[in-house]
This record gives sequence, C-alpha cells and structure tokens, in this order.
Amino acid sequence: MTDCKFANDAEVIDFARTHSGVFQAGANLGVEEIGDGNINFVYRVYADDGTSVIIKQALHYIRIIGEGWPLSQDRIRIEAEALQQEALYCPDLVPRVYHFDAARSAIVMEDIGAHENLRHALIARTHLPLLAEHLGRFAADTLFHTSDLYLDAHRKKELVGRFINPDLCKITEDLFFWDPYCDHERNNINPLLWDEAEALWQDAPLKLEVARLKHRFLTCAQALLHGDLHSGSVFACAEGTKVIDPEFAYFGPMGFDVGSVLGNLLLNVAGQAELPGDAAERAAYQAWLLETIAGFWNTFAGRFGALMEEKTQDPSLDLALYRDAFLAELLADSIGYAGTEMIRRTLGLAHVADLDAIEDPQRRALAESRVLHLGRAMIMQRGEFGSIETLVAFVRDH
Amino acid sequence: MTDCKFANDAEVIDFARTHSGVFQAGANLGVEEIGDGNINFVYRVYADDGTSVIIKQALHYIRIIGEGWPLSQDRIRIEAEALQQEALYCPDLVPRVYHFDAARSAIVMEDIGAHENLRHALIARTHLPLLAEHLGRFAADTLFHTSDLYLDAHRKKELVGRFINPDLCKITEDLFFWDPYCDHERNNINPLLWDEAEALWQDAPLKLEVARLKHRFLTCAQALLHGDLHSGSVFACAEGTKVIDPEFAYFGPMGFDVGSVLGNLLLNVAGQAELPGDAAERAAYQAWLLETIAGFWNTFAGRFGALMEEKTQDPSLDLALYRDAFLAELLADSIGYAGTEMIRRTLGLAHVADLDAIEDPQRRALAESRVLHLGRAMIMQRGEFGSIETLVAFVRDH
Repeated sequence: MTDCKFANDAEVIDFARTHSGVFQAGANLGVEEIGDGNINFVYRVYADDGTSVIIKQALHYIRIIGEGWPLSQDRIRIEAEALQQEALYCPDLVPRVYHFDAARSAIVMEDIGAHENLRHALIARTHLPLLAEHLGRFAADTLFHTSDLYLDAHRKKELVGRFINPDLCKITEDLFFWDPYCDHERNNINPLLWDEAEALWQDAPLKLEVARLKHRFLTCAQALLHGDLHSGSVFACAEGTKVIDPEFAYFGPMGFDVGSVLGNLLLNVAGQAELPGDAAERAAYQAWLLETIAGFWNTFAGRFGALMEEKTQDPSLDLALYRDAFLAELLADSIGYAGTEMIRRTLGLAHVADLDAIEDPQRRALAESRVLHLGRAMIMQRGEFGSIETLVAFVRDH
Repeated sequence: MTDCKFANDAEVIDFARTHSGVFQAGANLGVEEIGDGNINFVYRVYADDGTSVIIKQALHYIRIIGEGWPLSQDRIRIEAEALQQEALYCPDLVPRVYHFDAARSAIVMEDIGAHENLRHALIARTHLPLLAEHLGRFAADTLFHTSDLYLDAHRKKELVGRFINPDLCKITEDLFFWDPYCDHERNNINPLLWDEAEALWQDAPLKLEVARLKHRFLTCAQALLHGDLHSGSVFACAEGTKVIDPEFAYFGPMGFDVGSVLGNLLLNVAGQAELPGDAAERAAYQAWLLETIAGFWNTFAGRFGALMEEKTQDPSLDLALYRDAFLAELLADSIGYAGTEMIRRTLGLAHVADLDAIEDPQRRALAESRVLHLGRAMIMQRGEFGSIETLVAFVRDH
C-alpha cells in the first residue's frame, strides 16, 4: 500500500476510466490535481462532454509534510465506508462512491463541482436557504441510524469495530482538548491575545469541563460520527448541499458532530463583526447565521425526535420521557463541543479563515476574544440553555 | 470449532497433561466434571499428589439448554484474554491461565479449589475479613488500567476492538434492562409480588432512569469490565479471593462492575432479614455486610484516586478537580447499576439463592419487596447520595 501513488496523469486517467463507469468508451480524458486540503491527494478527471469524477488518494503520510508525519492509510477505507453508510440515509447529501480501491488507497467518487466550500461561501456572506434544513437532516439521519436506537445490538457492535480510527481520533483528542489549554508549541496565538490565553491556561473550572468533554469523546460510542464536520467539509450551493471528507469517522458522542456545525457557524458570526464590508450587510448576515443556527438545530431535533418515535428498535429506549431527556442532553453536549471548537480555532494549530481573514490584528483580536469568551461560557453553561433560542439570544447579547 | 467437545475422560486428561505443565511426568491423573454453571463445561483434572488444574470449555450452545440456544464460542477467547489482562494488575486475585486453546475452545487454568463460592459463603454468614479490600483493589486496578486514564489512545482502541462481545452483552442488555420492566415471559415472579411488579411496569420515571443506564451500558466504553461480577463469580476464603468467569468482559461503564458488587452484597443484606437462623446472628451479619460495602467502596475509591493521581497518562485528564468529579459520577453510576441488579434478581429470569433460599413465600415476598423498593430508590436517587456512608445509612433506615 505504501507505493501506491500514481506515477503520472495517464495512471490516474486509466484508474478513473476503469473504476467509475461514467465515461463514454473512448472518451478523451484530462486530469487536474485539485486538493486544497493538507493531508491527501485529490484529482479531478474529466471528459470533453462535461462528465467528471473525483479521485481521492491517501498516502501513508501527511501530504503537506511528507514522510516525516506518517498517518494510517486505513483512513481512506474508513472514509469510503462512512460515505457509504451516510448514503444509506441521505444519498442526496453526500458524493456517491463509485469505487474504493484498497491497493491504491483511493476512492473514485462523484464530482460535486457545482457546490462551493461552505467556509468561503459564509465569508462571502452568501445566503443559502437550504443549508439549515440539509445539515439538520444530515446530522439527524446519519446519527440516528448508526446508534443503538436503531441498529440491533450485534450490528452496532460490528460497526464500532469497523470504525475504530485511532490515528485520526488522536488528532482531535490533542488539537481540540489539550493544546489550547496549555502553552503548547503547536498553538498559533495572536500576540494581542496572549494575556487571555495565559488566563485560560489557569482556568481550572474550564479545564474540568473540557476534561469531561474529552472523556466523553474518548469513551462515548453513541453513533457513527462524521468526526470533522466543520464548514470546510461542507459544500453548498443554492440548490443543494454535500458533506464530504468523513475520514475522521468513528463511533463517538453525537453532540460532537452537531457542535461542530454550531461552532463553525458561530465562528463566522464572530468574524462578520470585524470583516471588511458594509456594516449593515454584515449585521444582516449575522442575523441570517443565527436564524440558520436555530433552523439547523430545530430541523435536527424535530427529525431526530420523529425518528426516535417511529423507528427506535429497542423497546426499553422507546419512551416519550426518554426522547425528551435524550435531546436535552444532546443539546447540552452539542453546545459544549461547539465551545471547544471555537476555542481551538482561536488558540490552537488550525485556525479558520472566518477569523484569519480579518487583516487588522487589533480587530482580529477583538473578534477572537469574543469567540474565547463565548466558547468558554458555552462550555461552562452547556446544561443550562435548554433551547436553541436561549443560546441564540445569549449570543446576540454577547 | 463446533465439534471440539472432549469425547471421553482420557481426552480431557491428555489435554490437561499437554497444556498445563504442572503435572509430574507419568503422574496418574483423574478427572471430574464440576461445572455448576449453566453455560459451559468445567472439568477438574488431578494427580495423586494433590496437583490439579481446571479446564473450562465453551461449546457453541448453552450447556443446560443444548443446541437450541446457540452462543458464540468467541466468549472463551474473551474470557482467557480478560483473565490475562486482569492478571497484569492483580495476579493474586484471578486464577492463572496456563493455556488457551482456540481449536478446543478451552482454557486450562489454575485450580482455586480452596476457595468457596462467595454467594454460598454469604448465605452461610461467613465473615471474610479480606473481602472488601480484595474486591475494591480488583475493581480499581482492572478498571483504571484498562481505561483512557492509563492506556494510550491507540492501545485502548485496539483493546476495545478485541473485546467486542455482542452475544454476551445482549444477555445483559435484555435480562438487566428490559425483562424486569415489562410482563416478559422470561420473568420469574413470586405470585405474592405480582401487584408490585405490575406497578413497576407502569413506573415511567423509573423506566426513564433505567433507559439512561441501559444506554450507558450500550455506549460508554470506559474500561474493560468483568461484566458479570456477582457473588457467584467470586470465590473466597479467609486468606484470599479469586474472581473468575469474565466471559461477559467488554468495554463498558465502570459503574456496572462496581454496582454488581454493591448490589449483590445488598441482596444478601435483604435476604438475611428473612433467612432461617438466630436473629441476633443475622443482624450482626447484616452489620458486617454494610461495613463490607463501605470498605469495598472506600478501598476502591482510595486506590482508584491514587492511581489517577500517580499514573494518569493524559495531561488533560490529570486534574485534581477531575479526579473528584470522576469518582462522584462513578459512585452515582455504581449505585444506579446496583439498583438494576437488585430489581432483575427479584423479578427477572435469574434469581439468587440469597433470596430464593427463604422457603416461606410470604417471608420471601417481604424480602423481595424490600429489594425492589431499595433498588428503585437507588436508581432514582443515584446522583444524590454523594458518599457510600450516606448509602449505607439509607439502607440501614430502609
């Protein structure tokens, strides 16, 4: 598996032709490398008639670093199988997998070229009327149908075994739950925020709550998560939404996925306060983002609750009181994990363009500081909000 | 694997001679079948000089039922590997494994013949001065060292995969968390308790809390549990304790193991109120049991807390506040799971001799009713006790 890298364009084209089944016989094919991620190689193979496919290949190291940072190639099998699981329940919201090739460590999949990276769309203040409904349905359907609420006990445990994903989980365990809470060499901190960072490293009550959330991330195998559901893993346009890149998939706490969506939308809310552009337009977009946050959760919770009511297989979990309790706990978890996403995107290694695009360091520090305070409050008070509307009002007042 | 049953005594003897390494060359060996369990075959092979070993064999069905109830033979591999894991941390408290034979689906292990089944010892009101310390240390050392507090992230996940145990978990999922809460054909209910059982089946707040505990059992992979730590899995004498039969081992919530010990000791407390024998002696034994319960938890919590302080590998979990919070949550979990053990031993399929040995149905119903009420209160109020002394005082007042 270690020498599976394509030697030249002809090999990529041949691979696409053999394994996709979408090209006309004898079609003239071209190839371009399009990966803007850091970890894998991504190619687009296209014909003159507009037909195209994507090939994603995982080597045994991180692309931008090289052989010095090895990473299990099992991640690409996990990504292929996660896409296939997701497609069982929301086929319209994920790229179709044409073929997974273990020898090449590569997936041949649908080209979602018409969709734009959600993070770029949000920074450009694009209104996406279907986003809340699509992401809410994606989270509800993928999480419910891979949980003990739906799967029988044997199938669930078999899937837990197939999605054991230590290399990728370790990245999250470190980058979300450790680095930002100490003076770690991997951190990337705006010098103007240094005093706040130092205060946070001494914040024992916060570190206690982060430890609880980390331990849940480590132990709580509720459902097959996407595992990396930030704005850069979502591609959207006016008509549709595609969720890509589930290579971090594993069985974990549902609130981690839901919280990733909430946290990333809130990062954009905070960024809009200081990004360039017309103030009224930015304020209107912040209002749209907050509506989208409420719409996302309400779609999710409505759909998840309905699925629990209709399809819970285990009679001992099929109780009205339990449905309410489950969703209340899930909201609290989600708000807490959203808070960890917000803090790690401010102090940790991997920043987001929603904040980094603020060029003036002072204004950026202002936005980052708001993110830190909001993230901390969300972690500490996660059990007290009780509804998404209360959270949205809290953010608005913040 | 399905035709691995020993055909005759000579085969058992030959197997023991080949795989134990404890017998003198040419020693004259005898064999007896000693299994009093329901599921497997257990043989004792012995020499004239007193040397002996135990052979435990798992067939592809349940022993007392036959081929009509199939059960994965993987359980015996899991038992062997669990015994080996436990032996890493408390070798004095488990039988030594000489050999595991996948082809025969059998373990050759140390004979712990000098120890008595704890349930029989408790019914006979035997004082066991080392029991609390031994069981507390067993639980603390096995649970801590197989958790994310101690293992590195890769090793923990590898072990989770090795101990996926769906067949045996399903038995617990059904018998603990479903059957007793409905009118299930597998239940075994004293007719004098029927009204109470019917009331319990309508008890929505209780069923909500049991659903929460069941979902934790299904999803919360905190540590490698013994998984069946009732009094019949413990053998004890004045000098020592051996914990056997970890075929239900899997990664689950630590409180399930701790609660199994608490629940079984409390079942004996309730039984002693109505068992035959001198009233003062029974009362004194109840007092000893309550001391043992407190001693067990305090040994466990003291040892577990010390291990957390000395050996927690993950710096983000190595916090004084987190240690206290972790043990507080673990006590609450343990009290809740103890409550489910007490209820299922009263209404469910598998009763315990601590209660069933009360011959008069009226007196037995009295003891069973106390168990039901206490179990319910422990489940409902599990987060409110805060200390083992409060639980013991609550039991004493009950």
